[in-house]
Amino acid sequence: MNDTEPASRAVTAALLVIGDEILSGRTKDKNIGFCADYLTEIGIDLCEVRIVPDVISEIVGALNAMRARYTYVFTTGGIGPTHDDMTADAVAAAFGVEIGEDPRIINLLLQWMKPEDLNAARRRMARVPKGAALVENTVSKIPGFWIGNVIVMAGVPAIMQAMLTAVGPKLDTGKRTVSVTILAGDVAEGAYAAELSAVADAYPALGIGSYPSMANGRFNNEIVVRGKDAEAVAQAAAKIEAFLARLQAEKV
Amino acid sequence: MNDTEPASRAVTAALLVIGDEILSGRTKDKNIGFCADYLTEIGIDLCEVRIVPDVISEIVGALNAMRARYTYVFTTGGIGPTHDDMTADAVAAAFGVEIGEDPRIINLLLQWMKPEDLNAARRRMARVPKGAALVENTVSKIPGFWIGNVIVMAGVPAIMQAMLTAVGPKLDTGKRTVSVTILAGDVAEGAYAAELSAVADAYPALGIGSYPSMANGRFNNEIVVRGKDAEAVAQAAAKIEAFLARLQAEKV
Repeated sequence: MNDTEPASRAVTAALLVIGDEILSGRTKDKNIGFCADYLTEIGIDLCEVRIVPDVISEIVGALNAMRARYTYVFTTGGIGPTHDDMTADAVAAAFGVEIGEDPRIINLLLQWMKPEDLNAARRRMARVPKGAALVENTVSKIPGFWIGNVIVMAGVPAIMQAMLTAVGPKLDTGKRTVSVTILAGDVAEGAYAAELSAVADAYPALGIGSYPSMANGRFNNEIVVRGKDAEAVAQAAAKIEAFLARLQAEKV
Repeated sequence: MNDTEPASRAVTAALLVIGDEILSGRTKDKNIGFCADYLTEIGIDLCEVRIVPDVISEIVGALNAMRARYTYVFTTGGIGPTHDDMTADAVAAAFGVEIGEDPRIINLLLQWMKPEDLNAARRRMARVPKGAALVENTVSKIPGFWIGNVIVMAGVPAIMQAMLTAVGPKLDTGKRTVSVTILAGDVAEGAYAAELSAVADAYPALGIGSYPSMANGRFNNEIVVRGKDAEAVAQAAAKIEAFLARLQAEKV
């Protein structure tokens, strides 16, 4: 336990991935895994992810359900200059605020574009809901934005990563989750489930999961112990290692 | 148009990914992309994806929201023998039906396991909601199940793929979505957005998206035209190719 970070103060997040291209399979999402890793690392618990199509009512519905429930909601996708980019309008609608051209973004655009090239489509990228702060984009300049507890990022992974990294230090964070992975190899889940369940019952504040995967046609199981209390995580992990060692010895 | 498959009859689906390990970043999901590709290919429109933790109330809430809305709901994860596998219980709770050991699965387990190895944990894998049909698992034998419009699959990608492939031929399907991808390369989205929007307005039944990606620090944009009417897709794609050719010529 750390006096400055009480374990009870969890900071939570949801991620809303916006785009027909993910749902059709055309684009394989690379942002969920990055956000999950990054948020976990800084002490924010990602609790839910949704993927919705480029439809204003779907985006608004998901945003309003999630922003009422979690400390932060991050969105990816739909902030470019084309007609299918409707995230900014949806966020404004969700918050019930006006949307208009932000002079800060127009100035940014004019730093690397001739005024005659700043057409209506490109001006669309300057539209942000009233009252939003900007989120820096070190890759391709045009910023994301932050309004209330919603942080709006691009869908291109390199740009999304730059935006999340830019906004990360400004976020409230909670106590980091500590995680220990124990290799169970080909010891069958069914052989250790009862003892694992007993450890889980003894440490109700921890998250204990068993993750089978397959390699070369054989199971390669791993057990993960996660929690805010590093000492409890270590104790539970030691108990699991002990029964796995016994089960492995029994197999031989 | 095809007389036997009216375009109005869309078959829709949602995917519910269940597991703390995806939300923590520990495991990078590989099932969403596979399901999106597979369902699109057979004529089912994937409309929404949610990722929720191993918490019964979260699984039930998402399931009930989605099964009321879409033709099918597919789930991945949480059907193993360990304490953190709670999908079957959650599905039974969502449908308000009893759950118990299915003698068909017990018989399957006994085909490759001595009766004395069939412990309580392994018997957990035989628990399915009352009235469910089984979904074949050609990889590791233990089946998924299908109740109402909900199809429950394993989380291990190789097993999930085997289950989806087994159940696919039994699903209702609609008219397949035809998709054409047009390479815009480094022609800026802002340069073609207005003309693309005009094409989208002219073909309201089609989904037309502009997808920037980056390679070696340069944008590599693609435009995708999707729809059930192959002729309309081809017409719209031709219009887009025409204005892109002009814009590319103007750049040189």
